[in-house]
Amino acid sequence: MSVAPALEATYGEKIKARREHIKMDREAFAKALGMTADQVDSLEGGSADITLDQLTAIANTLGTSIAELTPDFVSDLDEGVCYQLPEDNPVIKGERAGTNYYTYNCLVRTRTMPKLVPLLLEVNVDDPEKAAFNAGHDAHEIIFCMEGDIHLKWGDSENPREVTLPQGSSFYIAPGVPHTLTTTKGSGPGKVISVNF
Amino acid sequence: MSVAPALEATYGEKIKARREHIKMDREAFAKALGMTADQVDSLEGGSADITLDQLTAIANTLGTSIAELTPDFVSDLDEGVCYQLPEDNPVIKGERAGTNYYTYNCLVRTRTMPKLVPLLLEVNVDDPEKAAFNAGHDAHEIIFCMEGDIHLKWGDSENPREVTLPQGSSFYIAPGVPHTLTTTKGSGPGKVISVNF
Amino acid sequence: MSVAPALEATYGEKIKARREHIKMDREAFAKALGMTADQVDSLEGGSADITLDQLTAIANTLGTSIAELTPDFVSDLDEGVCYQLPEDNPVIKGERAGTNYYTYNCLVRTRTMPKLVPLLLEVNVDDPEKAAFNAGHDAHEIIFCMEGDIHLKWGDSENPREVTLPQGSSFYIAPGVPHTLTTTKGSGPGKVISVNF
Amino acid sequence: MSVAPALEATYGEKIKARREHIKMDREAFAKALGMTADQVDSLEGGSADITLDQLTAIANTLGTSIAELTPDFVSDLDEGVCYQLPEDNPVIKGERAGTNYYTYNCLVRTRTMPKLVPLLLEVNVDDPEKAAFNAGHDAHEIIFCMEGDIHLKWGDSENPREVTLPQGSSFYIAPGVPHTLTTTKGSGPGKVISVNF
Repeated sequence: MSVAPALEATYGEKIKARREHIKMDREAFAKALGMTADQVDSLEGGSADITLDQLTAIANTLGTSIAELTPDFVSDLDEGVCYQLPEDNPVIKGERAGTNYYTYNCLVRTRTMPKLVPLLLEVNVDDPEKAAFNAGHDAHEIIFCMEGDIHLKWGDSENPREVTLPQGSSFYIAPGVPHTLTTTKGSGPGKVISVNF
Repeated sequence: MSVAPALEATYGEKIKARREHIKMDREAFAKALGMTADQVDSLEGGSADITLDQLTAIANTLGTSIAELTPDFVSDLDEGVCYQLPEDNPVIKGERAGTNYYTYNCLVRTRTMPKLVPLLLEVNVDDPEKAAFNAGHDAHEIIFCMEGDIHLKWGDSENPREVTLPQGSSFYIAPGVPHTLTTTKGSGPGKVISVNF
Repeated sequence: MSVAPALEATYGEKIKARREHIKMDREAFAKALGMTADQVDSLEGGSADITLDQLTAIANTLGTSIAELTPDFVSDLDEGVCYQLPEDNPVIKGERAGTNYYTYNCLVRTRTMPKLVPLLLEVNVDDPEKAAFNAGHDAHEIIFCMEGDIHLKWGDSENPREVTLPQGSSFYIAPGVPHTLTTTKGSGPGKVISVNF
Repeated sequence: MSVAPALEATYGEKIKARREHIKMDREAFAKALGMTADQVDSLEGGSADITLDQLTAIANTLGTSIAELTPDFVSDLDEGVCYQLPEDNPVIKGERAGTNYYTYNCLVRTRTMPKLVPLLLEVNVDDPEKAAFNAGHDAHEIIFCMEGDIHLKWGDSENPREVTLPQGSSFYIAPGVPHTLTTTKGSGPGKVISVNF
């Protein structure tokens, strides 16, 4: 696998800080894990390898989650900014119901905001009758209609709400709301900017 | 002023719930506010008008903020969605340093996500030498370059970082980072989609 | 009513910052509210009184909540600490089912943590058969048994879970879980420290 | 090490959900990690062991944190409640400046609220002149004085704020505020309930 990125602290430092936060002494911690005090020292000092199973057991012993014991990555921003040129956009075909429904051009992302997923989305189906719903997702979504007459359906797929939105329109979809985009009947493909966060 | 929108509860209900949460009885509450128990009843029952000064004093007495005593607005979403047609976009001229620096076309907004401000932004100045910085703002910002070669400067305005980003590029700016957009020298105006959240 | 405490900003400052965040110009704002530009100036400059109805209409116009337009109180902490002497504890009788069920001695509170409500709670009923449930509340609760054999019932009041906890025991109750405390049959009153947050 | 507790999902499920959220296809994901598509299938299907280094590389590739890829533990609450009997309280000696400064009796904890650490704290030093400061900690702390005249110092250790608080008093200490407890000169040990959250 690829080399891991730099982390802002070590697992050992995070484990030690948590152990001290809950006022657990080294001996009790070592005993609960079936380790010696020396092994705890080398664990907390960063000179021992940790497996995922061990980390899970440690989190359990310390009454916390693996998340809280995991160091943050060093930021991938350059003084607060990151950018991506168009030739570096990953392009993904999004199939639904056997057709090339959407094409996703994935725009810039940053580890500091993992839920932020901006897309240039090509809407390939030009028939609202053939709309295929997703199940909703847990992100907020804001969409700007860049090309074509976008037809939005949302809510209950059997009995949806719907609206046609010309170029220049914009809309917001709350988390968990099933929805789908096509263009109007026979009008050809469309393009939108979609920002999920 | 315009008519207020519907609220999901009354001030009286929120005040009563808070008073009970902190185990304050009606008599102590009335005394602290210089009111009678009957006045507290009518306050909590919703049959008394409340001024902003009174609400501030009540929040103080109940050891909380006005925010916590304020009912939420009823959602402005239609089954989780709201949209805006292009002819309804408010258009604002954004002056900086005496020039018509940006033109803001304000896209759809919702009260359920007050920090979300999507914009179609026209970049009117085509000379990076004339770039005028903002002071940064407290929202995350994601930008898609729709037209023109966008020139981004950020960080310290005296000694900025900078990059030119062609159509189709995208970038992210963290909260608090001063920044500014022009297009490249003599290339005419540009357009970007900017989503603040 | 009592004099309002100091606030960290003015309503006018918060309103102006919000208006600028959403790129609304003064004229559009004035028009939406049926005001003149001069009135907006004096509103934002802090020289106009605002009623609660006006603030509600302003929040609506600016697509946000009253909470976001409300300045924070200045902290009531003394370099990060506040304390309360026992003679200053408000004492409240908590009736349930017609009996003097609990006595609440309200301990120190701070506006900087409005949900934090610590109590010295006297448990007056010494018969688990007479236990009267609350409906649960939206705070986390941690309890230390200081005096007496505490009998805890929780969950479904018709078919509760229950346990007797001697002096020195401690327990945690999640938000929304109905519960009730008595002492064991005929053992007299008890005392617990309860911290809600 | 001890057996790991039950988790609410698998790593594979979390990884797959994240990959789909950012619209990355299996092939691009496999390529970035130097794996085959079959290996990705078995990874996401839960039939492959994952090391911590692999998980770190996966998080990096998916532009997220290890925390977001880590399943939550199954709750350790019994219908929303957990309790601990006094004989099960771990007892830890807290040394400062070479003396047995505090004795920590650790009360009930739950994995669902990892920051919540309630303590019965014995204050062993009865001389404010010998007070030894901590550096502050990142939790809120609320304290009830159960026995003895508690002497609190806080802030700058060279020039501290201080107050003596009799039995029945209570106080709150904000995160990051250095502080220390003794009892008054020659008055013997004290006891407090301290809840950190």
